[in-house]
Amino acid sequence: MKIRVGYELIYEFPQPTPMIMVLGTHLTRASDVVVPDYLTTDPAVTISPYRDVYGNWCSRLVAPAGRMRLSGDGVVRDSGLPDVVAPSAPQHPVEELPADTIVYLLGSRYCETDRLSDIAWQLFATTAPGWARVQAICDYVHGHIAFGYQHARPTKTAWEAHAEGNGVCRDYAHLAIAFCRCMNIPARYCTGYLGDIGIPPPYGPMDFAGWFEAYLGGRWYTFDARNNTPRIGRILIGQGRDASDVPIAHTFGPNKLVSFKVWTDEVG
Amino acid sequence: MKIRVGYELIYEFPQPTPMIMVLGTHLTRASDVVVPDYLTTDPAVTISPYRDVYGNWCSRLVAPAGRMRLSGDGVVRDSGLPDVVAPSAPQHPVEELPADTIVYLLGSRYCETDRLSDIAWQLFATTAPGWARVQAICDYVHGHIAFGYQHARPTKTAWEAHAEGNGVCRDYAHLAIAFCRCMNIPARYCTGYLGDIGIPPPYGPMDFAGWFEAYLGGRWYTFDARNNTPRIGRILIGQGRDASDVPIAHTFGPNKLVSFKVWTDEVG
Amino acid sequence: MKIRVGYELIYEFPQPTPMIMVLGTHLTRASDVVVPDYLTTDPAVTISPYRDVYGNWCSRLVAPAGRMRLSGDGVVRDSGLPDVVAPSAPQHPVEELPADTIVYLLGSRYCETDRLSDIAWQLFATTAPGWARVQAICDYVHGHIAFGYQHARPTKTAWEAHAEGNGVCRDYAHLAIAFCRCMNIPARYCTGYLGDIGIPPPYGPMDFAGWFEAYLGGRWYTFDARNNTPRIGRILIGQGRDASDVPIAHTFGPNKLVSFKVWTDEVG
Amino acid sequence: MKIRVGYELIYEFPQPTPMIMVLGTHLTRASDVVVPDYLTTDPAVTISPYRDVYGNWCSRLVAPAGRMRLSGDGVVRDSGLPDVVAPSAPQHPVEELPADTIVYLLGSRYCETDRLSDIAWQLFATTAPGWARVQAICDYVHGHIAFGYQHARPTKTAWEAHAEGNGVCRDYAHLAIAFCRCMNIPARYCTGYLGDIGIPPPYGPMDFAGWFEAYLGGRWYTFDARNNTPRIGRILIGQGRDASDVPIAHTFGPNKLVSFKVWTDEVG
Repeated sequence: MKIRVGYELIYEFPQPTPMIMVLGTHLTRASDVVVPDYLTTDPAVTISPYRDVYGNWCSRLVAPAGRMRLSGDGVVRDSGLPDVVAPSAPQHPVEELPADTIVYLLGSRYCETDRLSDIAWQLFATTAPGWARVQAICDYVHGHIAFGYQHARPTKTAWEAHAEGNGVCRDYAHLAIAFCRCMNIPARYCTGYLGDIGIPPPYGPMDFAGWFEAYLGGRWYTFDARNNTPRIGRILIGQGRDASDVPIAHTFGPNKLVSFKVWTDEVG
Repeated sequence: MKIRVGYELIYEFPQPTPMIMVLGTHLTRASDVVVPDYLTTDPAVTISPYRDVYGNWCSRLVAPAGRMRLSGDGVVRDSGLPDVVAPSAPQHPVEELPADTIVYLLGSRYCETDRLSDIAWQLFATTAPGWARVQAICDYVHGHIAFGYQHARPTKTAWEAHAEGNGVCRDYAHLAIAFCRCMNIPARYCTGYLGDIGIPPPYGPMDFAGWFEAYLGGRWYTFDARNNTPRIGRILIGQGRDASDVPIAHTFGPNKLVSFKVWTDEVG
Repeated sequence: MKIRVGYELIYEFPQPTPMIMVLGTHLTRASDVVVPDYLTTDPAVTISPYRDVYGNWCSRLVAPAGRMRLSGDGVVRDSGLPDVVAPSAPQHPVEELPADTIVYLLGSRYCETDRLSDIAWQLFATTAPGWARVQAICDYVHGHIAFGYQHARPTKTAWEAHAEGNGVCRDYAHLAIAFCRCMNIPARYCTGYLGDIGIPPPYGPMDFAGWFEAYLGGRWYTFDARNNTPRIGRILIGQGRDASDVPIAHTFGPNKLVSFKVWTDEVG
Repeated sequence: MKIRVGYELIYEFPQPTPMIMVLGTHLTRASDVVVPDYLTTDPAVTISPYRDVYGNWCSRLVAPAGRMRLSGDGVVRDSGLPDVVAPSAPQHPVEELPADTIVYLLGSRYCETDRLSDIAWQLFATTAPGWARVQAICDYVHGHIAFGYQHARPTKTAWEAHAEGNGVCRDYAHLAIAFCRCMNIPARYCTGYLGDIGIPPPYGPMDFAGWFEAYLGGRWYTFDARNNTPRIGRILIGQGRDASDVPIAHTFGPNKLVSFKVWTDEVG
């Protein structure tokens, strides 16, 4: 299967403004790239790539004052298979976790493990460790959070999403991540393209998607508490402790987002 | 000058409990170590070190059920000079910051840059960029936060400390870090030993100290919004985005802290 | 200004042969791409991209036995301005260089800093540090090396180019890079398109060009010891420690290069 | 088994001199560290750690004018088992190699794959691919190079070692690495501690050791063309393309190495 992926973001800036972006197919999917979805800007500016502590390639630029269009448009090959389901994947004791997974047990901006720990243990202490526990977390989060774009806000945390009982895909992910960490399962946040491939209508507006990965049985598995069913055609963009680490666009100054489009379509 | 540093923590655990610790003189001060303050435990258990993404050496262990004592006791050489003051250290434009400092511009568990950005710009937009701005932030935080151990809690964030107007050294550091990041100055959290050397009495109870570093003029400088005056004899233990990254002790299960002592004394 | 860029390479292979290529406009210039110069092959084969440690997107493929044509043809926008000249750009002390520039101080396949260090210090120790020193290096290399395609060979190093006193653009770049590194200035090799825009005839045969960048005053600046004058219309393709890192085409087996064309022409 | 590891290097510097070092037990062995062999200096100076593109933690410092002692002394746990031998480990076709191994196929400062390719194919084309081929390379190098400290020089390359027929452990490693790469097997250079554990006398003077790893059957295996027999108690320090990437000590200025000691002893 081939999937056309891309985005167009239009901003207005009152003054020259530095930006950092985590955009474009992740290097772990590089071999699947048929047409690269390189970040381009109009007006053209110099883009400085750098690699962050999580291994993502990020882009730095300075947007000039005025209107700026950021876009990418590419084609990526995909297996066409749904997310892997591995009910027998075991949970590692903390003391046996690989050292580089431990950072994904700690609290982070939007995943307040310290505030959610008691709730997590009340809800999930009696579930079987491993895959079943992560699935129980996804089931709970899926049922507890009512989806609604009107409930989205940039500062919303897992604890707030839990208390308010609503949110968007990133809130589902943050809450599930926080619960996993409370239960001593490393979990990390993923942004990416996720289209409606294999899904019956009606379709909502397209956006970048947020999901998460949990570390079980020696590898990272994809989970998605928002959709809570294996999906086809996820194209990873960035990974980090939570959404603060993989900003689609982090602007260092005032700005107005004039227009925003994302596409992820099967193209045969 | 030589400084004796050390700690003794006594816990009670109802069951075997994994722990992660960031304890002991930081490797960047290894040359100053006269007697190492290695972590030892009673009963003795295997300690597995690992190195985190910030370069800290961390310690993993599994505490057995029952009472456990963790301690370290060492001697470290120190220049005896107060923290460096460099009023002419300039602020880097975001686009010229080294790539590895950018993670210290992002929000983190206890430093909600997104919630504090408007306040930061209202307070500090008219200050001169660079050292003067960081000093203005320290002055503000020092004046705004009333110190008091009764105001400490593990979940307290910079935004909460600002709203409540009180806290302990880590809250001062978190708030100043958050403000620096809002003003596009990379800032990172430090834990360490800090005694009363050169300070007149009365002295409070000893604890580990939290302070921060800001990146100005091509290097990291020490700032301390709690004390807000150059101090003598800081011995770094760990560095990270905030206190969640450099836990003195992170226990993965219920526990009771029975006793807690830290010492940092000039020994000639 | 718009520049048409492209290439056609025709090979003959006695057997299926893996290849790695660093070809096509660099991702940092993606915003300037009007028509992409994507690599295409005839016969068509699967191209697997990957991203190397320097951030370049590279292409892997297996050429079948027989004749194979690799080509790309695109249009790239350009400012039409000559290379930036910044005589006041300062040199960083080694201890203040960003960590990610240090790899560009070390020796590499074609830049034997260890063998050239004494010569470098004899020649350049008395030059002013910073831009003037890099310019002095370019002036020396430009004068010392006689250009001639007959002097090109794949194994030629900076030290050999210096000893033989001749070479092609990559040898100029390698020697200047090695001297910069000997003088503690990070320097990296660049391949790209460089046409004759703004240059009086006669023109030589077109080829990919090699130049270099030096890190001064907090950023990378373009230098070109071969031409040793600011040029218009450089289109970057790849960057690395030297030519071994950014092979136009690296073939893992015997082969014959039947035909080779590169074009870089202003198209209005 | 526990192994005491350490070193003492004494330098004299005519002027303040920046240095980079790759010293101390590698982070991949962190969990085995009983007593850390942190780098210490006398006089004490600030040590700035950074992580290079190969994942090594490196140390930067500025040595003051005069005499300086750099040392480390630690204890590391080890399995006590000899290097793994896996005769059935297969060779990957180039097109199936993981992307992050490809940099270890390219030429580097001391491994001139371009100059050694014809020799490599003459010698090893008829060997069975995979483990047997790497072993054949080790056997050849072991037999072809005569060991002798008097044959060591910092600029010596694989090609020169081959032509001269002599060298020290790093030359054996460089030549074997170059041959592996010529045969399309990723190979990387390793520095570390390697004592005489399990080896009959007489023992030579202790030094840091250089060996290499080859990528076969989905993982890296240790090879040692110098000793050419499985050894016990290797403690890795650094990894890179060749010795230029993992300098024990890279000094950016004139200096005199006054004294040099390394120890690696079983301590029960």
